[in-house]
Amino acid sequence: MTRTSLKDYNCSLARTVDIVGDKWALLILRDAFYGIRSFSAFQNSLGVAKTVLSDRLQRLVGGGILEKTRVRDGIDRFEYRLSSAGQELFPLIVVLVQWGDRFVFGEGHGPMAILDRTSGQPVRGVVVQSRIGEQLSARDVTLKLRPSAAVGTVQ
Amino acid sequence: MTRTSLKDYNCSLARTVDIVGDKWALLILRDAFYGIRSFSAFQNSLGVAKTVLSDRLQRLVGGGILEKTRVRDGIDRFEYRLSSAGQELFPLIVVLVQWGDRFVFGEGHGPMAILDRTSGQPVRGVVVQSRIGEQLSARDVTLKLRPSAAVGTVQ
Repeated sequence: MTRTSLKDYNCSLARTVDIVGDKWALLILRDAFYGIRSFSAFQNSLGVAKTVLSDRLQRLVGGGILEKTRVRDGIDRFEYRLSSAGQELFPLIVVLVQWGDRFVFGEGHGPMAILDRTSGQPVRGVVVQSRIGEQLSARDVTLKLRPSAAVGTVQ
Repeated sequence: MTRTSLKDYNCSLARTVDIVGDKWALLILRDAFYGIRSFSAFQNSLGVAKTVLSDRLQRLVGGGILEKTRVRDGIDRFEYRLSSAGQELFPLIVVLVQWGDRFVFGEGHGPMAILDRTSGQPVRGVVVQSRIGEQLSARDVTLKLRPSAAVGTVQ
């Protein structure tokens, strides 16, 4: 059986993936963080079919990640901006860039460096941290079913 | 024009996305972090068609994220384990869970809590940080083309 939607999964990851878990959605998200806003600018950047772009933009709007607004009143031109929830996916973008830098291009050899605007220094590698700021690997954490989620299947 | 592969993109994010930018790949990755290793266990967890599962496992192995090894010498049973490079994608998984917790289920209402095994406390929200540990938003960073990458199109 192939599920086409993950909406019925009782898993926060699956629900996020249902919105952004697609190569075009992730590239659109990257471009949105780079400041791209119009349909034609996304199209130029990605070279993707208009139907695919339109579908993915709609999904990102529906998922609360992008907001579609009219450029000016009375004119049928729209732009797509990151919502405040969308802005919170910034670490996702940085993780994907940093992993490619390290394991595809080789540390320090990726095409783009991500710099702190104030200091001009590269940002830190994104990591999982404990409450007191220690770096945690997958082995250092455990998952606990929240009581409120005890009904239903956890996938 | 629809590109089916992102391998020719001179962008670290696109290269990572080419391996993991798919809903099934991301769910497989989640399950691998949960300790799932065998084809049949992935299949049971995900309810995905065998052909799709086989394709995505192969892509994750090819991308250096999973390692396919024989369970015992001389027996045709295999398992899939996270490579050391794959382990480095742990923050990706946590970002996806935490975003779904906050924006799909509502803060503190996601099905699973991610706890630091030592303290039993929830892990921190994954964020981008400066060299000295300040939290950075997308507005606080700038991208700089590395000199080594000056040849070719940056997409």
